[in-house]
This record gives sequence, C-alpha cells and structure tokens, in this order.
Amino acid sequence: MKIALLGGTGNLGKGLAMRLALVGHEIIVGSRREEKAISKAEEYRREVGGLDISGMVNEDAAKKCEIAFLTIPWEHAVETARMLRYALRGKIVVSPLVPLKKSGDLFVYASDTSAAEMVASILENSTVISALHTIPARRFADLNEKFDWDVPVCGDDENAKKLVMNLISQIDGLRALDAGPLSNSRLVESVTPLIMNVIHKNRLPEAGIKFL
Amino acid sequence: MKIALLGGTGNLGKGLAMRLALVGHEIIVGSRREEKAISKAEEYRREVGGLDISGMVNEDAAKKCEIAFLTIPWEHAVETARMLRYALRGKIVVSPLVPLKKSGDLFVYASDTSAAEMVASILENSTVISALHTIPARRFADLNEKFDWDVPVCGDDENAKKLVMNLISQIDGLRALDAGPLSNSRLVESVTPLIMNVIHKNRLPEAGIKFL
Repeated sequence: MKIALLGGTGNLGKGLAMRLALVGHEIIVGSRREEKAISKAEEYRREVGGLDISGMVNEDAAKKCEIAFLTIPWEHAVETARMLRYALRGKIVVSPLVPLKKSGDLFVYASDTSAAEMVASILENSTVISALHTIPARRFADLNEKFDWDVPVCGDDENAKKLVMNLISQIDGLRALDAGPLSNSRLVESVTPLIMNVIHKNRLPEAGIKFL
Repeated sequence: MKIALLGGTGNLGKGLAMRLALVGHEIIVGSRREEKAISKAEEYRREVGGLDISGMVNEDAAKKCEIAFLTIPWEHAVETARMLRYALRGKIVVSPLVPLKKSGDLFVYASDTSAAEMVASILENSTVISALHTIPARRFADLNEKFDWDVPVCGDDENAKKLVMNLISQIDGLRALDAGPLSNSRLVESVTPLIMNVIHKNRLPEAGIKFL
C-alpha cells in the first residue's frame, strides 16, 4: 500500500517507515519542510537498503497516499489535521496521538476527549483509526531491537480497522488487537501516561505493553 | 502481617488469601455474613494445607487487621467503606476497585473520579493505596496457574505504598511497580475495561498486563 507518515521525521515515523518498507509497502515521509522530508526519507532508505521510501511536504504526502499515519507531536496535531482535511478526504487516517502533559514530575492525560475523537471531528471525510499509542518510539526506530508488544486498535469502521490491524501485524513483534469503537480510544491512549509514570518512577527502560 | 480481605469470598479474595497465607501472613476473610466468611476461610485453608486463614464479619476483620483489601464488588464499595470507616481508622486500605460498567457489549470506565480517590474521601482516617486492578481473578484464584504480571500501585503515603508493593511482590509471578500518587489511579483503573474489551473482542483468555 501507499502509506504516508505525516510529520514522519521523529522516531515513531522512522520505525514505521523502515518496518513497513521492509514488508513491501511504498512509504512517503511527510514534513512541513520538503528538504527535511527528503533527507529523512534518504536516511531511512539507506538503513533498509534502498527500499521504496520518498519524502515530500505533508500535503502532497496526504494527497498521494491510501493511508496516512499522524506521526506528529500532540501539540501540532489539531492544527495539522485542520490544514490537511481536504488532502485527507476519503483516506484512512491512523492516530497514534496521546494528549500527554507533564505536571511536575508526573505524566498526565490532559484532555476530556480522546485525541482520536478530536481528530475525527476535524477529519469528517476521512476514516480515523486509533492505534500505536504505546509503542516505545526510540526502540521501535532501532532495527536491532527485539520486542513483543500488543497494539490495541480502535475504530468505528470495521473494514478500515481490520486493514490497519493487518498492516500493524505485518510488523514482526507487534500483535494488533481489536479494542472496540473510537469511543474506547481514551482507554487506550491513557495507557501511555501510565507507562511513562511507571518507567520513570521505577527506572525501567522504555516499554510497551502485553496482555498475558 | 495481619491481613483482612473484606468481602474476600470472591476469586480475587480467594487468590490473595491463599497466596498471602502461603508466604507466611495471617489472613482474615471478611464477609457481610459470618457463616459465609467462616466456610470460605475453611475452603481456602484446606487448599493451602491448614495455614492461618480465619473468617469473620467484615467489621471484625477490619478491626483486627493491620492492612485491609477492599475485595468487594464495585457496586457495594462506597456503602461498605462508609460502614467500615471507624473500624478502618489508622489502617492501610488497598483498593483494587474499578468503576466498570457494561454498555451494550462494551466495557466502559463509568466515573469521573477514580474509585481509589472516592474511597479515600470516605476513609479520611485510613491510608488508601490503589493496586491489583488488572489481576485476572479466576486465574489468580487457581494455585495451578502460572503467570507473570505487573501490578501498578498508586498512593500518596510513600511508606504505606512501599509496604503494599513489598507485600504484592512476595507473591510469585507479580511485580509491583510504583505508579505515582493516588491522583494517578484512574490511569491504572481504566486499564481494566481496556483488557475486558480486548479479551472479549479478540476471544483471548483472561489476561493481566506486563510492561516490556
């Protein structure tokens, strides 16, 4: 599939770009700045031995893809969604967004509405699926890392949800699990501040979750 | 330690009674009905080969113990806490409570305030610690089960939190992790409806969580 990683220049974008390219997908790295998108795409492409990864501005990436991942920082998510709402019409849009804030030395879930539902209310003509919130980005971006993580996936469109679950499960070490409709997204998103608090307070390495 | 399992006649109470007795603690099973407490205590005691497990009404159990677990259904938790507020003065009280509701075929987190904070506001003269929300009770109550679960623990009193974490970690297969103050309890409690939805939708067996 043609997959855009919007704002895909961070670690989650890097991990997805490389790992999805490795299982045969066509990857477009998006950024607000074209040069950054191109140079990051080149960096990722080099790491995976010349597979199909290109770079362009977010809007072009959004237009060109079949499915887009919002791999952008939470602070810019709503603004980016607004800017790309026409480019993303009719597409599947995956939200790994978490309304995470630091309050003192605590990580808190700083919203009454889930990020996915907020984004879905802006992208009315896209199909929003919520997934990948608990992936430790630095480890995920390192191809030498071994992991075994579960990925709860929420969405209201069953076909789109299945397609995203299938895509995620193609990545070695990830098991996508149906976590219900988009209204369940807060339950999934709020695992991220829990993990952040737990690894910080107990001096653990970056961690994902597993139901077992 | 002298440990009371208030309303400890269900599977979580059974698992805690047997597994804490096995590591040398004195266990008091509490129930609203004395005969039920006594017969359940007898049943648990038989399963662990005659260790120190007795049964009495909740109020006596609360008075006699050093630390109490609120192993009661969520629906009766607030009422029970009100009834036992004097008996529990000065004690450590562990809340594994989760405000879980079913809405259609979905499990939802049905409260604005965490269960632990709600209980703490009633038990003003006790030290409330939040823990053990994600333990699959049926598996936990079966001594033949093998597991490897993490137990996030929240609380405002660092000494009481450490004591509870230590107690939990004495049980083989459980790793207690500091998850911050009681204000973080909602993050932990809401993992339970997430797990319930995931195991139900994906037809998985009862599951706990592990950060890895």
